[in-house]
Amino acid sequence: MQLNEIYAPIQKDLVAVEDGLKSVGIVESPWLNDLLGYALKGGGKRLRPALAILSACFYDYNLERLLPMAMAVELMHLATLVHDDTIDNSSVRWGRPTVNKVWGMEKAVLLGDYLFAKAGDLAVSTEDMRVIKLLLQPLMLITNGELAQAASAFKLEQSREHYFFRISCKTAALFVFATESGAVLSKTPEKSTQILRGYGHYLGIAFQIIDDILDFIGTEEEMGKPVGSDLAQGIVTLPALMLMERYPQDNPVKKLFQGGDKKENIKRATEMVCNSTITQECFDVASDYRTKACQNLKNLPAKEARAVLTNLADFIVSRWR
Amino acid sequence: MQLNEIYAPIQKDLVAVEDGLKSVGIVESPWLNDLLGYALKGGGKRLRPALAILSACFYDYNLERLLPMAMAVELMHLATLVHDDTIDNSSVRWGRPTVNKVWGMEKAVLLGDYLFAKAGDLAVSTEDMRVIKLLLQPLMLITNGELAQAASAFKLEQSREHYFFRISCKTAALFVFATESGAVLSKTPEKSTQILRGYGHYLGIAFQIIDDILDFIGTEEEMGKPVGSDLAQGIVTLPALMLMERYPQDNPVKKLFQGGDKKENIKRATEMVCNSTITQECFDVASDYRTKACQNLKNLPAKEARAVLTNLADFIVSRWR
Repeated sequence: MQLNEIYAPIQKDLVAVEDGLKSVGIVESPWLNDLLGYALKGGGKRLRPALAILSACFYDYNLERLLPMAMAVELMHLATLVHDDTIDNSSVRWGRPTVNKVWGMEKAVLLGDYLFAKAGDLAVSTEDMRVIKLLLQPLMLITNGELAQAASAFKLEQSREHYFFRISCKTAALFVFATESGAVLSKTPEKSTQILRGYGHYLGIAFQIIDDILDFIGTEEEMGKPVGSDLAQGIVTLPALMLMERYPQDNPVKKLFQGGDKKENIKRATEMVCNSTITQECFDVASDYRTKACQNLKNLPAKEARAVLTNLADFIVSRWR
Repeated sequence: MQLNEIYAPIQKDLVAVEDGLKSVGIVESPWLNDLLGYALKGGGKRLRPALAILSACFYDYNLERLLPMAMAVELMHLATLVHDDTIDNSSVRWGRPTVNKVWGMEKAVLLGDYLFAKAGDLAVSTEDMRVIKLLLQPLMLITNGELAQAASAFKLEQSREHYFFRISCKTAALFVFATESGAVLSKTPEKSTQILRGYGHYLGIAFQIIDDILDFIGTEEEMGKPVGSDLAQGIVTLPALMLMERYPQDNPVKKLFQGGDKKENIKRATEMVCNSTITQECFDVASDYRTKACQNLKNLPAKEARAVLTNLADFIVSRWR
């Protein structure tokens, strides 16, 4: 299934999110207008707002109450991307120049800060204390995860445990915010809320593993950003971990981190991942997380959204093919 | 009066803030511990927590209720400084290397983000919706003000109006958060709350003007950072504005912005400001704002904090001598 087919049942509400985001970009300050307009018009899949909307479909669905939060989670996501690209000095995202490339590091940092504040502002406007608290958790976790990543960059002592900790923080935390907040704002009973929270968490992990596979086997065109960028930044993801586990004495990741030729070793690592069962093994791990994400959905009310959540999980893990 | 004399009546509570900030620095993540410890041990005057405490002294004072917010305003301040120094690539703050200098741009951006989130988390823990909303306002204003500053850098068309807009955003907004939140959390009647809000706003303006004078006439030792750094970054502050108003045809700011020698023109501008009445005129403007800040304090209950707020305002505008 294509994403637009999966989104079909909530298409109208996603348009409302899109319109809301557009209105965030219209401010009095001319110096902010262009930046916001550019950042908000990216090529994102609006996956997090979709998760928020879908998670709100099981009980008392109210788009008006939901909308600020669905916008907040996307703004939070965009803010972290803008800061990430700035930190990594990335040039391309969604197949176009990054904010830092077009406007420079200075404005990119400030734009990220503004987006964080605006996300907070929107979350606060829900006047739901639990939702407000939920929003701040990911921001602390994301920065913590990114700092953990920065601290471990180019280090050979890496564990799967550390990898899963990092991706829980940097990716799954925001998925959890989307699903749990959607549940909370639709007066979902606690047991169902926890099911949706769990779905968000496991789906976030699966999503990031697939992203990390694509960084090895994708093309720049598919990804909208350069391939092999994780290793280039010294970030060890699951495929690289498996490579190191398989060839502990001698492998291109080790050579790279010990100062070997960058281009040559990244190319070699990519080839070794692509031409081995590592890709499939990573996919199997992601697939297990997809299963964990969906296994309790059957205990939610039998609404259309339940099938959509499953379809979305399937879409996310099938992106790698 | 020295600052420690002024602070004497609230010294015990400021120690509680300091201890609270220290505890923020103790987290499980080793990669975050060092960074936080360093950032929190700076040489700041803890002016904003002091303003929060003093503003809470007129009605139902409750330190326990106040503490998270008093810490939040300082963390917010520190977060903006960490990002500012990163953006400006500054090397020295409080007479020691900046976070970006010690740990690099990447970690400095993330540390700032973490501090923002932690500030939000603390504000949320007050469970006071007005305080939570008040906290997000400055962050949007600060980034808006900084972006306005970045957009106008090295441009000759500058107005006093634009200058006051910028410093309202980037400095006064956080002062307002401190005083208004202190009032709100001590159940201050709305009329008195507005007096304290106004005090915070005008004092913030006065404070920034004095800071901007000191950037011309101070020494690196006094300031804990290099002198003339505003002009070096193309930022036009009140003294530079007055210089341009006085010599519209030919002045070192114009020469600098038109590509003239950096060192030479900054030196010349500094000399012209120091050897003219401009310093005094700027001080008079700051002094007017100090008066505006204090003029309504007489309508607050006659508590010791009233005199302390006046002393603090006097201290702030007398820093220039």
